[in-house]
Amino acid sequence: MLVTVTMNPSVDRTVALEELALGETNRVKDVRTDASGKGINVSLALRQLGFPSIAAGFLAGREGRFVEAEVREFGITPHFTWLKKGSTRVNIKVYEVGHNRTTEINEPGPVVEPQDEAAIWRDLAQVIPQAEYVICSGSLPPGVKPDFYSRLIDKCRELGVKVCLDASGPALLEGIKAKPFLIKPNEDEVEQLLGWKPEGKEEIRAAAASLTKLGMEMVIMSLGADGAVFYREGEEVLWGRAAADPVRSTSGCGDALLAGVVSSLLTRRTWDETVRWSIATATATAEIFGTGFPTVEHIKQVLPRVVVESL
Amino acid sequence: MLVTVTMNPSVDRTVALEELALGETNRVKDVRTDASGKGINVSLALRQLGFPSIAAGFLAGREGRFVEAEVREFGITPHFTWLKKGSTRVNIKVYEVGHNRTTEINEPGPVVEPQDEAAIWRDLAQVIPQAEYVICSGSLPPGVKPDFYSRLIDKCRELGVKVCLDASGPALLEGIKAKPFLIKPNEDEVEQLLGWKPEGKEEIRAAAASLTKLGMEMVIMSLGADGAVFYREGEEVLWGRAAADPVRSTSGCGDALLAGVVSSLLTRRTWDETVRWSIATATATAEIFGTGFPTVEHIKQVLPRVVVESL
Repeated sequence: MLVTVTMNPSVDRTVALEELALGETNRVKDVRTDASGKGINVSLALRQLGFPSIAAGFLAGREGRFVEAEVREFGITPHFTWLKKGSTRVNIKVYEVGHNRTTEINEPGPVVEPQDEAAIWRDLAQVIPQAEYVICSGSLPPGVKPDFYSRLIDKCRELGVKVCLDASGPALLEGIKAKPFLIKPNEDEVEQLLGWKPEGKEEIRAAAASLTKLGMEMVIMSLGADGAVFYREGEEVLWGRAAADPVRSTSGCGDALLAGVVSSLLTRRTWDETVRWSIATATATAEIFGTGFPTVEHIKQVLPRVVVESL
Repeated sequence: MLVTVTMNPSVDRTVALEELALGETNRVKDVRTDASGKGINVSLALRQLGFPSIAAGFLAGREGRFVEAEVREFGITPHFTWLKKGSTRVNIKVYEVGHNRTTEINEPGPVVEPQDEAAIWRDLAQVIPQAEYVICSGSLPPGVKPDFYSRLIDKCRELGVKVCLDASGPALLEGIKAKPFLIKPNEDEVEQLLGWKPEGKEEIRAAAASLTKLGMEMVIMSLGADGAVFYREGEEVLWGRAAADPVRSTSGCGDALLAGVVSSLLTRRTWDETVRWSIATATATAEIFGTGFPTVEHIKQVLPRVVVESL
């Protein structure tokens, strides 16, 4: 079983309009509402790939009830911990058709109280022992200390469960101290980890070498439109990329990349196949408008476009 | 009993941030969610003034359930008609603290089908006969023909019920054909009705004279920060205004003005007192952040600042 942990889920409300006039009243042309949050996105992408999962984390209030209903409707098993107060945050995405530009307006999310944190440890203890992988994705909500992921990784290790961590800032810096099985930093997060930003092939090679010394078994450095660099102990360092045709929305691409990797681990793909499959999954996601995830058929169409080179 | 009719209610989600950077990810400082729509605002303002009302109109989906719960919690009797499909719209208000500027992003609202319209006529028929005044405020949703208010005004007249109409565009132009008891156009709506925009005291006097020839018993021309001009058959034309100290949000001021007038009609205030009370109610509303409505105590504090002159 796979368990995703989303500590600060969101309801994404995407509104489309021709152009946003500041200080004016603007009329929306189109609107869609999605249950989201990075761990939930990984569960959604995994579901498309044919892998069921349990979605854990915090939910609250009426927005939380919407997220739970959506997750369940998509065939994912909800196992959320409910906050006593507040409501799950709403993240607004304003897409200006005329400028092909998206402005994001993100709320901080409800505050987690000490009794809520005690409750999530109890809830996680019910599902972690059955897990092959626990995927911790996204930010920590207000009130949760940055060492939360670190403590969770320690508990999982005791149970022989591998953790994939996709976080930023203090949650990432504290989290890697417990040496999770896998991290998937993007360029900004690589800079947070190393203190410098790799540019060009030589520096990317050097950054990958430095990251692997931090103690993770797998490191995937995601580079946006330039694909991703894949490191695994005992394997060649590979750089995979593919051109999206065309790019419609980069929302959820990193989460799809991670789902591609986890599904490859479970199906025992070769290292080269793992890179190809993960890159194709992320690229197909970029070809979908909004935070949607591709079908296996769509991913297979992208596969021939994937270019892999050793770094 | 008073009945307010809101054909296209909304959930207002107001987010506050320092400055909105287009094309970027922006972090929200503060957020509030209010049940809204102009008729519902009139009900909320009336409640503050001590007058219960029945709130009618269309609601839909999970956003609609939020509006109904809020209305009930505030001591207003919900008597809404539920649309078969869709969800009540969310209107986003982005307040930039650094610029003291609000950008509104308004959704069109769910589409009304013919069977929904048949249902609302049945529901309205249950409450209109008990009403002293029916207050129709705000836009008509997609799918409802512009003569809806006109037909409602005709039905109310048959039952001896007076209608106050606060609408814009075709809904207003069609609505006044049935000669409601009262209309409350703002400057833009005056331009829609007369074909020209009054500027300066002389033109406002001329506009008031023209509007009264359209056949309404009362006409209130609202002029924003310049107050409002009050016309009633057999009474002097009066211009009332007051300085807000300071202006915090003009949201809901027009709805508060209308609530002030209706409450004055019910309590048989003199004409001069009606003008003073209504202007004070609207001005106190401008002194409240967000779409909130003032207490009687707050209104009484504003009353001495109201200036009334005959036009």
